[in-house]
Amino acid sequence: MNQETKNAQYLINGQTSSGLSVLDRGLSYGDGVFRTLLVKAGLPHHWSLQYQKLAEDCQALNISCPSEDVLLQDIKALFDDPLDAVAKIIVTRGESARGYGYPADISANRIVIKSQIPAYPAINQTHGVSLHLCQLKLGLQPKLAGVKHLNRLENVLARAEWNDVKIADGLLLDTDGNVIECTMSNVFARFGKDLITPSLDECGVAGTARALIIKNAAQLNLSVKVESMSLDKLMQADEMIICNSLLGAWQVVNLNGQQWAKQKLDAQLREMLLN
Amino acid sequence: MNQETKNAQYLINGQTSSGLSVLDRGLSYGDGVFRTLLVKAGLPHHWSLQYQKLAEDCQALNISCPSEDVLLQDIKALFDDPLDAVAKIIVTRGESARGYGYPADISANRIVIKSQIPAYPAINQTHGVSLHLCQLKLGLQPKLAGVKHLNRLENVLARAEWNDVKIADGLLLDTDGNVIECTMSNVFARFGKDLITPSLDECGVAGTARALIIKNAAQLNLSVKVESMSLDKLMQADEMIICNSLLGAWQVVNLNGQQWAKQKLDAQLREMLLN
Repeated sequence: MNQETKNAQYLINGQTSSGLSVLDRGLSYGDGVFRTLLVKAGLPHHWSLQYQKLAEDCQALNISCPSEDVLLQDIKALFDDPLDAVAKIIVTRGESARGYGYPADISANRIVIKSQIPAYPAINQTHGVSLHLCQLKLGLQPKLAGVKHLNRLENVLARAEWNDVKIADGLLLDTDGNVIECTMSNVFARFGKDLITPSLDECGVAGTARALIIKNAAQLNLSVKVESMSLDKLMQADEMIICNSLLGAWQVVNLNGQQWAKQKLDAQLREMLLN
Repeated sequence: MNQETKNAQYLINGQTSSGLSVLDRGLSYGDGVFRTLLVKAGLPHHWSLQYQKLAEDCQALNISCPSEDVLLQDIKALFDDPLDAVAKIIVTRGESARGYGYPADISANRIVIKSQIPAYPAINQTHGVSLHLCQLKLGLQPKLAGVKHLNRLENVLARAEWNDVKIADGLLLDTDGNVIECTMSNVFARFGKDLITPSLDECGVAGTARALIIKNAAQLNLSVKVESMSLDKLMQADEMIICNSLLGAWQVVNLNGQQWAKQKLDAQLREMLLN
């Protein structure tokens, strides 16, 4: 275990327990959801949106979502210093005996984990990033699409496709060849004054950074379309942006042998997302 | 928590630890595999095949599989009485900091859980079982197909489609409409002297009971074909069997409005699988 894992701090249902039950269905079946968010000076960033998405994802799986107050209490207890940090919130369906079925009165477990903000290379902001084009294709499952659930083996396998530290993320297509997302970020392609972000009705994770850009793009005089997009179309974009709650937004300047000149939209989006 | 969860006994890496690390990637991403098997008078049933499948599944995900000896020691320690019971073995990739990537030297975690043999209704053996036809369709992901991994939300959602205790399992088709499996069992259809079991190259879990039937069907003067099968074709079968390591084999006598007369193959297969 490395230093970062040793220093992790967490609460399970508000308690500094020694560990999670091996009967938790989060372990058995990935039966739960999660959020990853910035905590700035003790306050969870874009909290309303983060909690709304957590509640929606719980509802999609018929998991009982902890109240906003209870989660805010956990965060207050855990992030008791002024340093910016990362909160990961996991909500599992709870503990049950072996088997896919579960009792109607099952009680969800909540886990809040504190960790350091990743040390992203400064060059990602100043010069843009390179993406790997993943060989793994995302399977289509409309019943789970968009939800940030704990079944993330596709992301794990896709992320294992490259070791080069100069690669910031991997672009994922679905089994039909449509562009969906990256392993840890969502994707926008700009064509003139239009931003296109892939539809996530069949697979993929609808992140909060993506939601914020969709909501606020008009402030930058951009319109947003959510629609399916082929790789060919993406490669013709004027520029391409990846985004998530921790990195904000980075421009992609290198993908699949093609290069784009560095522009300024990524900095404007980071301002929108991180400040 | 009900009585069964209270009484669970388990070992984490051979120790009676109080719980699992919240940084275990089995929880974070379902990044692991599992087996469920009978332990008869302290001895794991069909152990060679179970261990072989565990090792193959670990290899499919590039997870370091615990040695056979280490797992047998865990089982010996946990199953120290002569009663038949169920062992669930979970192997996760191990613990890591937040993020889909993992260090090359990550150390797998093994969890062995003891539980009681399920109290299946006797009528399932004497009269056969009814299946629910699931609305959820399995997504196609050849990189994970066949592997008994911890990303099982499809099974959880499918199992939640019915509450009727007279339904023994739910039949799952894939998004192309092919018959694949049930939520907790594999499927065989008999046409004369041919047994057909669905190909699991695109999705589904290849269980050990299925492997044993494929291997030993000739003893019952049956040949086995592994191929894709539509629901229409399945409905025309002379009989239909579901199987897993705990229940052995049950004949399906009721599916989607169609009924089949009870026959004797299920009893022969149970003899092969459970004794």
